[in-house]
Amino acid sequence: MYKTAQEVWQACREGVWRRPTAGLAPGFAQANLVILPKDDAFDFLRLAQRNPKPMPVLEVLEPGDPEPKLTAPGADLRTDLPKYRVYKNGELVGERDEIRDLWRSDLVAFLIGCSFTFEKSLIDAGLPVRHIDCGCNVPMYRTNRMCVPAGRFSGPMVVSMRPIPAHLVPKAVTVTARYPAVHGAPVHIGAPEALGIADLGRPDWGDPVPVNPGEVPVFWACGVTPQAVAIQSKPEFMITHAPGYMFITAMLDEQVASS
Amino acid sequence: MYKTAQEVWQACREGVWRRPTAGLAPGFAQANLVILPKDDAFDFLRLAQRNPKPMPVLEVLEPGDPEPKLTAPGADLRTDLPKYRVYKNGELVGERDEIRDLWRSDLVAFLIGCSFTFEKSLIDAGLPVRHIDCGCNVPMYRTNRMCVPAGRFSGPMVVSMRPIPAHLVPKAVTVTARYPAVHGAPVHIGAPEALGIADLGRPDWGDPVPVNPGEVPVFWACGVTPQAVAIQSKPEFMITHAPGYMFITAMLDEQVASS
Repeated sequence: MYKTAQEVWQACREGVWRRPTAGLAPGFAQANLVILPKDDAFDFLRLAQRNPKPMPVLEVLEPGDPEPKLTAPGADLRTDLPKYRVYKNGELVGERDEIRDLWRSDLVAFLIGCSFTFEKSLIDAGLPVRHIDCGCNVPMYRTNRMCVPAGRFSGPMVVSMRPIPAHLVPKAVTVTARYPAVHGAPVHIGAPEALGIADLGRPDWGDPVPVNPGEVPVFWACGVTPQAVAIQSKPEFMITHAPGYMFITAMLDEQVASS
Repeated sequence: MYKTAQEVWQACREGVWRRPTAGLAPGFAQANLVILPKDDAFDFLRLAQRNPKPMPVLEVLEPGDPEPKLTAPGADLRTDLPKYRVYKNGELVGERDEIRDLWRSDLVAFLIGCSFTFEKSLIDAGLPVRHIDCGCNVPMYRTNRMCVPAGRFSGPMVVSMRPIPAHLVPKAVTVTARYPAVHGAPVHIGAPEALGIADLGRPDWGDPVPVNPGEVPVFWACGVTPQAVAIQSKPEFMITHAPGYMFITAMLDEQVASS
């Protein structure tokens, strides 16, 4: 499997890889993508600042520039992800393999940390990552916790879920707390009903995974939150990654860890 | 001395307090202030995102609104700090006790975390805070480390310095690392010359403090950085707090600590 960010970019660009990215290029930080017209960019960046758990910003690109010069020099955000989603007025109007023909000089791209990044650290610490073991996408859920609004943007927080054996839950907290730039420590442990999640077997995005006896569902804030926000706030135009189909940055995990 | 943020706001508003704020309202998070016209606000917020150690953003206010509704409801940023500085084209053109007459509907205020916030935790942990013991302002230095630029803004990182007994330096790291929103762990320990600081006795802002035998100078990123950036980048108009004369938010230390 692909060992580096650059190999994944190329595989996406050539149309060879069109699947989720969990487990790819281990040790490289993964990112959610949000692309908005410049007129909406300041409001969106304020939304991210007010909600750093679901929306920790790794890079804000120059308007019109598709190359993440700070976190992934040489990459092209229009072609180097496996799958994109296009929203118009809050409606998902299509999935794309690339977005070259949609690019405009007034578009601003945001890269937001993804919890896939700390999965290598979880595995190294002896913790299971069920969706990698199952070879499927991580389950993601819309919650009843609202983001702090900013300007035109408001909406619910989305979480990802990983089942963790009860005696390893403290370890899952300490291992991931070192990575605030990719969602950091969990936001909720156990009790999915308190987050407004009625059925763990029916995620809003991604695939269901089994929660075994003796395991607790652990919830991390998720960078799909901007897509839930888009559905509620209805910006005219927005492009994102497809949930689970992330952008791989050239940053190493340790470079996005806290000091 | 003042015990709450609200008491400090009132004392500033009434002209009773015009001195640095270290040690005031212990337990309340303190903040640096930057005010810029909306046209410069997106570039500045991107600068902060790219340089989270010197510029951890606590709140970005709505354009034209002087009340920090999220972090200090009821306060007025035009009157509730002890001292302000006004910059035009990168030049310091004056110090003010209040800025009501300078306020405009297109101004955007940024509150940036201040390391005074974790000084209570340092004291509680048995660490000395020399400038509080001396009753003076914290020493601050321009360094040779450049911020990652964004749009029109570039400039050097500024640091604050606290002398710490060598055996307590590890404790100083772990205690402050819990507070990334107010600069977090130090950026540099010992060796001031490697930061381009020729003489600790001559700070660029604030007052010198003695470094005793057996003590090491420990440097934290400082929210005066935007003022060093303004001097270099020369925005048409910018208002800040006077270094050391901070805004006290209504947030408790624990509310700005990491999970």
